Amino acid sequence: MKGEKAVIGVDFGTLSGRAALFRVSDGAILSDAVMNYPSGILAKLPDGTALPEAFALEMYQEYETVLFTTIREALERSGLDPRDVIGIGIDVTSSTFLPVGRDGQPLAARPEFLNDPHAYLKLWKHHGARQEADRLTKTAKERKEGFLSRAGDVINSEWMLPKLLEIYEKAPEVYRETERFTEMADWLVEKLTGQVTRGISHAGYKMLYSPEDGGPSAEYLEAVSPGFSDVLSKLQGRMIPAGRKAGGLTEEAARQLGLLPGTAVGSSLIDAHVTVPAAGITGPGEALLILGTSCCMVLLSEKALPVPGISGCVKDAVLPGLYAYEAGQSAVGDMFSWASENAVSAEVLQEAEEKHCSVHEVLTARAKELAPGESGLLALDWWNGNRSCLADSALSGMILGLRLSTRPWEVYRALLESSAFGMRKILDEFTASGVEVKKVRALGGIVGKNPLFMQIYADILKMPVYAGSVPHGSALGSAIYAAMAAGSGNGGYDDPEAAISAMGDKNIRIYEPDPEAGAVYDRLYHEYCTLHDYFGKGGNEVMHRLLDGKEAAGA
Amino acid sequence: MKGEKAVIGVDFGTLSGRAALFRVSDGAILSDAVMNYPSGILAKLPDGTALPEAFALEMYQEYETVLFTTIREALERSGLDPRDVIGIGIDVTSSTFLPVGRDGQPLAARPEFLNDPHAYLKLWKHHGARQEADRLTKTAKERKEGFLSRAGDVINSEWMLPKLLEIYEKAPEVYRETERFTEMADWLVEKLTGQVTRGISHAGYKMLYSPEDGGPSAEYLEAVSPGFSDVLSKLQGRMIPAGRKAGGLTEEAARQLGLLPGTAVGSSLIDAHVTVPAAGITGPGEALLILGTSCCMVLLSEKALPVPGISGCVKDAVLPGLYAYEAGQSAVGDMFSWASENAVSAEVLQEAEEKHCSVHEVLTARAKELAPGESGLLALDWWNGNRSCLADSALSGMILGLRLSTRPWEVYRALLESSAFGMRKILDEFTASGVEVKKVRALGGIVGKNPLFMQIYADILKMPVYAGSVPHGSALGSAIYAAMAAGSGNGGYDDPEAAISAMGDKNIRIYEPDPEAGAVYDRLYHEYCTLHDYFGKGGNEVMHRLLDGKEAAGA
Repeated sequence: MKGEKAVIGVDFGTLSGRAALFRVSDGAILSDAVMNYPSGILAKLPDGTALPEAFALEMYQEYETVLFTTIREALERSGLDPRDVIGIGIDVTSSTFLPVGRDGQPLAARPEFLNDPHAYLKLWKHHGARQEADRLTKTAKERKEGFLSRAGDVINSEWMLPKLLEIYEKAPEVYRETERFTEMADWLVEKLTGQVTRGISHAGYKMLYSPEDGGPSAEYLEAVSPGFSDVLSKLQGRMIPAGRKAGGLTEEAARQLGLLPGTAVGSSLIDAHVTVPAAGITGPGEALLILGTSCCMVLLSEKALPVPGISGCVKDAVLPGLYAYEAGQSAVGDMFSWASENAVSAEVLQEAEEKHCSVHEVLTARAKELAPGESGLLALDWWNGNRSCLADSALSGMILGLRLSTRPWEVYRALLESSAFGMRKILDEFTASGVEVKKVRALGGIVGKNPLFMQIYADILKMPVYAGSVPHGSALGSAIYAAMAAGSGNGGYDDPEAAISAMGDKNIRIYEPDPEAGAVYDRLYHEYCTLHDYFGKGGNEVMHRLLDGKEAAGA
Repeated sequence: MKGEKAVIGVDFGTLSGRAALFRVSDGAILSDAVMNYPSGILAKLPDGTALPEAFALEMYQEYETVLFTTIREALERSGLDPRDVIGIGIDVTSSTFLPVGRDGQPLAARPEFLNDPHAYLKLWKHHGARQEADRLTKTAKERKEGFLSRAGDVINSEWMLPKLLEIYEKAPEVYRETERFTEMADWLVEKLTGQVTRGISHAGYKMLYSPEDGGPSAEYLEAVSPGFSDVLSKLQGRMIPAGRKAGGLTEEAARQLGLLPGTAVGSSLIDAHVTVPAAGITGPGEALLILGTSCCMVLLSEKALPVPGISGCVKDAVLPGLYAYEAGQSAVGDMFSWASENAVSAEVLQEAEEKHCSVHEVLTARAKELAPGESGLLALDWWNGNRSCLADSALSGMILGLRLSTRPWEVYRALLESSAFGMRKILDEFTASGVEVKKVRALGGIVGKNPLFMQIYADILKMPVYAGSVPHGSALGSAIYAAMAAGSGNGGYDDPEAAISAMGDKNIRIYEPDPEAGAVYDRLYHEYCTLHDYFGKGGNEVMHRLLDGKEAAGA
């Protein structure tokens, strides 16, 4: 429909990026374009040096290429008049950042840093700063730093702060030459607008910034490592809340994209969080579970209260005036995939082959025949550690109740259940801390694929689960923010609630809880909690010792 | 070699029987014959009534057929002169018994009992008397019955006593018509000798008989169920210690077998226990692990001491003058098979297919590459409950330390290790109770097939493991007893040590413990014990509750 306004959402994942155009009036998708980063995560440096397993580096240039290429392609496919495109929103994984020199160019572009891993774009899943994260946590606890409660009492090695300490101590040359450390999301906004800004989400969750106290103090940073307070001078840019305009397209960027100069570019955002508006959430109390390989849970609240084990609590990061809490589970789909790949029988594999379906589908179909409790199994869902409540990556998975008669689909169902028990534990912690959970929504790849899992969620959480379905959910979220950044004067929205109500997900399937199943699961949840605390809260630290032993044996 | 003396051992397992001839001078096998019971375990009665899952009934007539057929066949194959065959020994599973009427014939032969399950031969693994076993244990505990310590404080539903209570209460007609309840082993001895005798092993382990106190008293049995003391009058026959002669072949039996009348027939024996002489054990302090689907451990001692969780302690049951303790694990090979069938990957299955080998072999080969502790896993080996130490069939298996990187061969190795930890726990209980363990021997199907498992045993037990290898080990054991029963006057032996030294296993491979592995396993064993007690001794009875829930959900 000619003349109707559209916005562009660009979502950068771990291995690929995608741009999509959405109609401002109702959020309908008009076109999209997807592109992988050609090199992906680097296995070695240009001189052939192999990178450690914990390292996750990428080529920043490939993000720029994907940004321009996918927007141009999506625009072309939409057939829209550039004058009708009123805004661009960008979300990226986080903390995924790069060092930028005094010349305004990334250090990774300089020949002298070509073979220095610390000059590269560091991906969120770069795990080279584990020890640094532990030291930061320890010192913050000793000094009773106020920001720690916003971090769930633990600083995660995937955040920016420990990675900066890693560079400060392990790559002084890179550190010295760096004018500023910039989140990739902010760098891409800068490429479009020419403005140096910082999205408040990235700064809040990954650098522990807060408008109230400013975040980690110089004194604290000095206590961690002498001289490290200097890093505060290397974090530059205007702080922009979610949904506000960071700037307008430069002449140069507009020309490259085929759009109009001055087109609104929104504040940079975090990929998981932008799904909140995409899911249609407009206010506090609705927990959004983003279910993929792992689970990210976002919950808005009017109150900032200390909740044990959260991954962060940041004001204005998702909707203006509200605190956005993040929590989650580090293995959800990954754990189910583990089971489908490592805990199956010849019979199950054969059935999948004969029926031309996935092993997941065979296991799910058989698991569905079981009543709650019928497997006699109970699992702790810590296949990749525990991200929330216990915030302990050294924890591991457990299955209990195994008998000679136990079959793979029983184990599979026990894992589905354990994942839902883990989420109930998280939501219980929020409720116990005074943060209300009124409603549960689910989005993500698993939601549409596994209705059994959704039903188990509803039965175990004892609440209806509102399962949504949006193609390119993150891109839609970024596009909704772009419509807010553009504002009503340009055909967008001033009021976030109006934007979300109009553009957010409306394709909801409700899974109602079954009270009978709930009664059985109440008993199993009680067992889960006992084991959760026994293995997770010091009753028996065998999981830590087994991991230490594993690492010692492997060394 | 013409003129050399030979003995026949006949071993009756759960689904088949085998007879073998062995040379008296050195135990060399001369011939054998194997035959399945044609009907196996009955699924239904002649009138079509399906039998409950817990029931395990067989046709007693088929044991008789196997006895005569296999002896005749083996004799024929050996080409021996019947005059050179000096004795026959018989071992059967236990308690596997049948009711016999006043006419001296089994009730199961009568048309009026054709469709009464309780008139049939009840196999050791008949589990219809679980509740009866619990009641017997409870009353014995209340009355502080002395025999209970010989039973490891728990009366097992697989023994004769609870099964008799089952018949007494549930099939009064069968009970009334029964003149005597007879172990299948004793019945077969009777078929050969015409003598009504009772092998002391069966009576001791399965009816708690002891020469010192006679076993369960009339008062105790009345306290369990009024009138039940009458059962004592239905247990008839001369009690015969192991290795003594029960009688000579009758004219009729000799004719049918092609042997000489009067040929010595030894006391009836239990299949697992007869492997003690077959393994070459001549005195106290040598633990024999008989490793198959489960593990039966037999240990001789001069002392009768209460050891928690043993399955029995009977004097003269294995060697004269010594107490024979039995303990064991209810799933060993079964647990490894579970893993090879239910916890594998497509890759493992494919490798087995390409290499034309078993899944066990692929998993073992890969597990062998791992260092102790490298899997980061720890398991509790209770896939079929715990038979010793805890004597609790409601316990179940557990795996802990699971990560996304965990692979099937790591789980497999953790199960091998857990099985050895379970045995170390059993041996530790003996040592702590004052019963010495000087040496560890192993026999059974797994021993030759899985050297890795034997090495893990040695490393975890911190003792050399003497792994033996005898074809038809139980039949050899029964034959050694037959040579003793025949006595030196007939070309056999009077002295058990001489018989065993001459005829027992000499094909021993010694697995020496690796001290470095032992140090790692010491730490893991400490973890195992903590979890063993937490889940097994009331710290957290979650396994019981999960099983209750499973049964409720399945009902």
